[in-house]
Amino acid sequence: MILTVTLNLALDVTYQVPRVDWDGVNRVGGVHRRAGGKGVNVARVLAALGQEVIVMGLAGGPTGRAIEADLRAAGLECALCGIAGDSRTTLAVSETAGPRTALFNEPGPEVTPAELADFIRRYTALAAIADAVVIAGSLPRGVPIDAYATLTAIAAERDVPAIVDADGEPLRHAPKGRPAVVKPNAAELARAVPGGTLADGARALRERGAESVVVSMGSDGLLAVTGEGTFRARMPYTVAGNPTGAGDSLVAGLALGLVRPEPWPDRLRRAAALGAAAVAAPVAGEFDQDVYTAVHPLIVIT
Amino acid sequence: MILTVTLNLALDVTYQVPRVDWDGVNRVGGVHRRAGGKGVNVARVLAALGQEVIVMGLAGGPTGRAIEADLRAAGLECALCGIAGDSRTTLAVSETAGPRTALFNEPGPEVTPAELADFIRRYTALAAIADAVVIAGSLPRGVPIDAYATLTAIAAERDVPAIVDADGEPLRHAPKGRPAVVKPNAAELARAVPGGTLADGARALRERGAESVVVSMGSDGLLAVTGEGTFRARMPYTVAGNPTGAGDSLVAGLALGLVRPEPWPDRLRRAAALGAAAVAAPVAGEFDQDVYTAVHPLIVIT
Repeated sequence: MILTVTLNLALDVTYQVPRVDWDGVNRVGGVHRRAGGKGVNVARVLAALGQEVIVMGLAGGPTGRAIEADLRAAGLECALCGIAGDSRTTLAVSETAGPRTALFNEPGPEVTPAELADFIRRYTALAAIADAVVIAGSLPRGVPIDAYATLTAIAAERDVPAIVDADGEPLRHAPKGRPAVVKPNAAELARAVPGGTLADGARALRERGAESVVVSMGSDGLLAVTGEGTFRARMPYTVAGNPTGAGDSLVAGLALGLVRPEPWPDRLRRAAALGAAAVAAPVAGEFDQDVYTAVHPLIVIT
Repeated sequence: MILTVTLNLALDVTYQVPRVDWDGVNRVGGVHRRAGGKGVNVARVLAALGQEVIVMGLAGGPTGRAIEADLRAAGLECALCGIAGDSRTTLAVSETAGPRTALFNEPGPEVTPAELADFIRRYTALAAIADAVVIAGSLPRGVPIDAYATLTAIAAERDVPAIVDADGEPLRHAPKGRPAVVKPNAAELARAVPGGTLADGARALRERGAESVVVSMGSDGLLAVTGEGTFRARMPYTVAGNPTGAGDSLVAGLALGLVRPEPWPDRLRRAAALGAAAVAAPVAGEFDQDVYTAVHPLIVIT
């Protein structure tokens, strides 16, 4: 079982409007609501690949109940910890007859120390029986910026490998918890370790405690700095589509590499192919099986 | 007890954003969520005036649960009937540092015949013990356009006076149910009875079965065509503010006139004052008590 942790679970809402009147009344044609947050997208991809998963996270209020209902409707096992605050909604207003999409991110709930302590207790129990842990996304307000280091250390003490996909301060602190893999994209790595090349940045995160660092570089593929050496995964061609969720699909591929131990080149090939296949799917948390099958053997590892 | 009926209950959400990037990512500063729909606003005003109320309506899904939770948090007694569909959300995106507000209205749920029949059964029982019934707002999909006539007829058969605040086809059909009062605004009346003056339109609705017709005309006051004669309520001055919800506050005033029988001039004076006092309040369903007290004695009835 792979445990995915999403501390800042969200309800992702999409409004489709032919053309938006930004100072008037708009009838929304299509409404889509689904549970979101990076860890949820990772779990959806893993479940689609036949991997047993449990979705952990913090959820509260009416929005939290909507998130849990959607996860259960999708057949994802979940172990959500309640909070008093209302979980956040992210809204995308998309013009079906125009070019524009506006995103609105709510500030989200404030988590209390007692709620976080309750979560960590439950996480510790589930991490102990997991084959791997995936910790992804932003932190809700009230959670210490080194929370991901705390969670990965709990897993590491139990010899359970953890992957962290984070940005900013949570990314900078994560290596202290000895994660098996840290997965920033190029911009996130450059922010966390300013100056030098991406390989320099990856090495710096390894020196701080991360076992391996995989840097996603969009259509330029992957850079992996590992105990087995440094690898590049190059894409055979650029897949057109929606890059939202590609990183999550890639993380799902890396997580599989932890529970089915393989040489790094094989892990990277699968992860890169899953990332590309997610670009070809319209919604985060999904991937195109045909693209995955087509692109997988063509990825070049050097 | 006054029973307010809102078939198309909504969760009214407001996003406050300093200045909206309509093709990018926006951090939402303030989020407000509250139960909405015209009948809910009427009930809030009645409850604030010390009147016992019960809020009836159709609600379903996670959004329906959020609506019910907000009504209960506001101390409003409610008797909501469940539906399988998810209740609608209305979203206002308001620029705090700019002039624009965009409204997004979701299509809302489709109500099944069995769900409507269940509602009517429960409504019939509650209407029988009500002192008055207020039926307000739009119809959800799946509900017949003459539903308000059906509901008012059920009240009329039990000698319970009903007020209908509606637009379009529901307004056109409502008089058949013999409502005590129909309350269109000037534009709604002109649409329902095209051609002629507002007084002509009001008389036409009376001929079709409405006992009285009160037309709201914004800062021009009210026109009432009743069995006691035709009256005008003129405002002493224009109250500045947000007209959303003013009609609902006015309807609350008219509803009180049905349970505390008074001559029409007194009813109109109170209703007009409550409408003006709602303009001075920032949120629909609230009114400014000081404005109410100040404006009430100055309203001229002719």
